[in-house]
Amino acid sequence: MTQNSLEICFTPAAFDAHADSEAVVVIIDVLRATSSICTAFANGVSEIIPVATVAEAREMKARGFLLAAERDGYVLEFADFGNSPFNFTAEKVKGKSVAYSTTNGTGIMKQASECHDVVIGSYLNLSALCSWIIEQDRKVVIVCAGWKRRFSLEDAVCAGAVAERLLESGRFTTICDSVHAATDLWGKARGDLLGYMEKAAQRSRLREKGLDDCIPYCHTFDVTDVIPVLSGGKLVAL
Amino acid sequence: MTQNSLEICFTPAAFDAHADSEAVVVIIDVLRATSSICTAFANGVSEIIPVATVAEAREMKARGFLLAAERDGYVLEFADFGNSPFNFTAEKVKGKSVAYSTTNGTGIMKQASECHDVVIGSYLNLSALCSWIIEQDRKVVIVCAGWKRRFSLEDAVCAGAVAERLLESGRFTTICDSVHAATDLWGKARGDLLGYMEKAAQRSRLREKGLDDCIPYCHTFDVTDVIPVLSGGKLVAL
Repeated sequence: MTQNSLEICFTPAAFDAHADSEAVVVIIDVLRATSSICTAFANGVSEIIPVATVAEAREMKARGFLLAAERDGYVLEFADFGNSPFNFTAEKVKGKSVAYSTTNGTGIMKQASECHDVVIGSYLNLSALCSWIIEQDRKVVIVCAGWKRRFSLEDAVCAGAVAERLLESGRFTTICDSVHAATDLWGKARGDLLGYMEKAAQRSRLREKGLDDCIPYCHTFDVTDVIPVLSGGKLVAL
Repeated sequence: MTQNSLEICFTPAAFDAHADSEAVVVIIDVLRATSSICTAFANGVSEIIPVATVAEAREMKARGFLLAAERDGYVLEFADFGNSPFNFTAEKVKGKSVAYSTTNGTGIMKQASECHDVVIGSYLNLSALCSWIIEQDRKVVIVCAGWKRRFSLEDAVCAGAVAERLLESGRFTTICDSVHAATDLWGKARGDLLGYMEKAAQRSRLREKGLDDCIPYCHTFDVTDVIPVLSGGKLVAL
């Protein structure tokens, strides 16, 4: 049985040290981008077009796309809605193409697009995602979107949950210290995940802006089987 | 009582997100650069001149400096010795100026030199270092040297030990997720620090090269009271 290597990259700032054109890259931004993307696909969005800059977001809106866009938790004034997963209802997104730009999550998608596959991970699709990854029989790099190039606790813990599942399959091996750290953090957090997340900086940021209503939902396992994948610059469901 | 902010940066790749000209920066590279530097000062070296590139290292040797230099654990062929703390004996370094270049530890010193103070941390000088830091009444950023822009477990755990000590003083506050992660990792490791470090990638790298003899020493608390500090591009004892 082949064992492929498993790595975690805690911040997009270090992605160049992990990038590999043969790897499956899993992007995790629990609060809130990748949870929102999984929700959108669960609710039937046809595609999501990640755009990195505010200028590109404005241009996509002008071209007639539905636009979900935020910076630092605030909805861009010309956007249709922001980055809460609760915005991506079937009523709003089913069958639509949505342009999407967020503080941390969408930039790394552009960076990672040279890799073999780029898929979107969250607690919401964790089991389906891990099963699919295991079938690929490839090196895996899990990338935490973090916060403005910094480490984020909520992404690291979710990365640890994914890593544990992949290692348990026996199909992966690791010499990556981030994997050991993330699985240990997940081990500490798992008994009371929401309680552990009380100390996360992003938890405080969202609370201050009245945007923390989605935190329990974003830490719910296996709400959907969708696996959003980057294909030709767009996210589509596998 | 003023409470200053405390941050940890897990990799030099993300240093720009933490850099602050008003901050005290603590550089940690447990295996082996900062442990070796502390040992050198404990043994009476007069100054250490960090140089980032192999070309600069060669030039310093040509200019007559004693040269300690390695890449990936191997001593550069024109160097006097490599990066084991056991090389920096009083016999070799007492009263000398040593030029010093390592894979990970010395590059970040150049990056951090714009900050208010840059000091060298390790388990070997942990108590003296923390007491001095607390007296400064300034923001603190602990930077883990990591491994080639990646996260390193041994540096993160030591950063957690320093962070715990600083937070216990009551003089610091943090909204930095890396601090929470590092202190949790330190909490998990502290009961059997060497046992925990068995899984660290750098532990395996050093073992493969027969360079792991220094690992127990590098995880020994409070061998010395020296606090090496960067001053005008050189490390000197405070």
